[in-house]
Amino acid sequence: MPEFLELLPPLQALAQLLEHLPVHPALEEIDTAQAGGRVTAVPVTAPHPLPSFPRATVDGYAVRARDTYGASDTLPAYLGVLAEISMGAEPGFSLAPAQCALIHTGGMLPAGADAVVMVEHTQSARPGEVEVLRAVASGENVLKVGEDVLAGEQVVPAGVRMRPAEIGGLMALGITKIQVSRRPRVGIISSGDELVPPEEMLGAGQVRDVNAYTLSSLVDAAGGLAVRYGIVSDQEQALRDVASRALVECDVVVITAGSSASTRDLTSQVVDNLGKPGVLVHGVNVRPGKPTILAVCQGKAVIGLPGNPVSALVIAWLFVIPVVEALLGLRHAPPRPSTQARLTLNLPSQAGREDWIPVRLLSSAGGYQAEPVFGKSNLIFSLARADGLVCIPADATGLEAGEQVEVYLF
Amino acid sequence: MPEFLELLPPLQALAQLLEHLPVHPALEEIDTAQAGGRVTAVPVTAPHPLPSFPRATVDGYAVRARDTYGASDTLPAYLGVLAEISMGAEPGFSLAPAQCALIHTGGMLPAGADAVVMVEHTQSARPGEVEVLRAVASGENVLKVGEDVLAGEQVVPAGVRMRPAEIGGLMALGITKIQVSRRPRVGIISSGDELVPPEEMLGAGQVRDVNAYTLSSLVDAAGGLAVRYGIVSDQEQALRDVASRALVECDVVVITAGSSASTRDLTSQVVDNLGKPGVLVHGVNVRPGKPTILAVCQGKAVIGLPGNPVSALVIAWLFVIPVVEALLGLRHAPPRPSTQARLTLNLPSQAGREDWIPVRLLSSAGGYQAEPVFGKSNLIFSLARADGLVCIPADATGLEAGEQVEVYLF
Repeated sequence: MPEFLELLPPLQALAQLLEHLPVHPALEEIDTAQAGGRVTAVPVTAPHPLPSFPRATVDGYAVRARDTYGASDTLPAYLGVLAEISMGAEPGFSLAPAQCALIHTGGMLPAGADAVVMVEHTQSARPGEVEVLRAVASGENVLKVGEDVLAGEQVVPAGVRMRPAEIGGLMALGITKIQVSRRPRVGIISSGDELVPPEEMLGAGQVRDVNAYTLSSLVDAAGGLAVRYGIVSDQEQALRDVASRALVECDVVVITAGSSASTRDLTSQVVDNLGKPGVLVHGVNVRPGKPTILAVCQGKAVIGLPGNPVSALVIAWLFVIPVVEALLGLRHAPPRPSTQARLTLNLPSQAGREDWIPVRLLSSAGGYQAEPVFGKSNLIFSLARADGLVCIPADATGLEAGEQVEVYLF
Repeated sequence: MPEFLELLPPLQALAQLLEHLPVHPALEEIDTAQAGGRVTAVPVTAPHPLPSFPRATVDGYAVRARDTYGASDTLPAYLGVLAEISMGAEPGFSLAPAQCALIHTGGMLPAGADAVVMVEHTQSARPGEVEVLRAVASGENVLKVGEDVLAGEQVVPAGVRMRPAEIGGLMALGITKIQVSRRPRVGIISSGDELVPPEEMLGAGQVRDVNAYTLSSLVDAAGGLAVRYGIVSDQEQALRDVASRALVECDVVVITAGSSASTRDLTSQVVDNLGKPGVLVHGVNVRPGKPTILAVCQGKAVIGLPGNPVSALVIAWLFVIPVVEALLGLRHAPPRPSTQARLTLNLPSQAGREDWIPVRLLSSAGGYQAEPVFGKSNLIFSLARADGLVCIPADATGLEAGEQVEVYLF
């Protein structure tokens, strides 16, 4: 295992991990209707144009545009009304010169028609006839065939996280099944002799396992599939056995170490022995979360998180989510949800280190204010009391009260 | 049904709907581990303090702080090492004056100890003895009992959407089950003679139902439970039958109307007859989505959406999501996820009307740029090509190229 004298900044540490991580997402076919949040595994192309027929975008009369040229309030064009076009049906006729047909928004234009006159620009004349008071250009108030998508057009690339709009678009094309990336399995191991499962009563000196549950929830929301391996004691053999099993059964292994130096070293040792290339990053220039371990073993990501629940959650947000997204094949990841706010207090920071500070959002007349929530990083409720995180970049020595900051909703 | 001469702005229209909407969320008990995204129905209080025992925050020696007073590199305090404290165990002894105990981060302080000296500030002396090179104050490097939460403290109020941090906090307290609001059932009805289900081949003049699926996905993601009632023809009796059934079976009914004026009137008529007080808002001063209908019938929200898929989705985002959130009992709703970007183009708009414009985000050196995606509101892929929406407020006549805008991720 190499010596790590210099701590890497988080983004660089992540890049180093991703560089060594082979990505070949497995596919599965699912119902498009259930695909919200899933990531497309292959590009989707349109089997036919959309719309598939010329459609009216207004209520009015389908016309031959040239029949309306020069029409005005004082000199209307008189057109014979051939029929009313039923919604969802093919007009069984075509327009001859000086003919029109009553049409509703979304209706299909008959052959011969190339525009629609809005009903507001017409008035009734004799039965079977209408006065057109305004000229329309060819194509006016009409959706052309293929105006939304063309036949054969790529409508959703691979690597896109499906939103309602994509689901709707595919449904419009009759694509009711799609190929998505299988959710990467993320094995979660909690180590620490002081840990007991949440359902147990606490003995003196014991704490309940928090990280397995915060991480599971985070991983599942990011599109992974959390697999909890329970609590392992701080013994090398025990940790190695569980970690090896998780490495076989999962795509990513996350170990939350005990927080003492000795158990951190133990974790690092066990991880490094899981396979090549082993530990790539040991220690990241970030607070909280400095003792983070990033490794690739046998082609799979292994991440050692600090045991403190706040550190573990922040570091998982910085490293585990991007790994899950990479394994999903996600491209064009949308920006992390955030909102703008003004800091209520000065936040000093050590230059050269990236800091992530929990803040609470307060509504005020001029928009949100961000109030830092102070608390040692072992206090999980300091995150529960916060709405998001503010980043103090490594090149800053702090942020000033009143400064506009981006609050990442957490 | 009242006449609606003046169109309400969206926020005012929503306020009118919510004002008439009774909210009394039903409860259900679920596993805390599975509670991500759910909304607490009752406040949760701590059954015991956290931490429940005094814990070391560093690796070092548990001491009586007064024994270290005056200690320095040149004049160390000599303390006898009584024992090593095992993780997860109660120290079976108490410190007498001039005694200390080896302790690891997270370990339990023995009786008599009130501080921890970092191991870096000590050095080994004779066997069984340690030199303390720096004084510590009482409480230093120690988490006090209740420093995170006190016994009986309200740790999660009612009406909070559970995130990983809340889940972790409750697990730390041994609260493995919680009471959350039942997901409101949102009945979704698509009306239109031109509609066919997505799995069907299109005949001439037919289009596939898009809105039922975009809305289901949106509703489910917001914490509701979408119930699709399928496609109903544009006939009053048919629509009334299905809407009445949905009103009995669901907490909210959403009808996407056909887009022609006649079917919109039909929808409004049917909704108004579903029960008192009936239609509250008919037409909203927003684009897209002007012909929106907001109603409360028999104590339940009924929302009529425009048939155009883009309008339907934007309006559902503006009105259906807040209704679902209200019925969930959500308080302190977090800000809608957004990001900042600079507009690439001038966006003109009609003063007095609120406009929502789909935009695509482009990464650039100075942050994101927002490029408007133009397309008629019947073109669902204009939303699929967009990353979010930009609002042009009613009091503006547009936005200018280069202007900093908030892009709501959609």
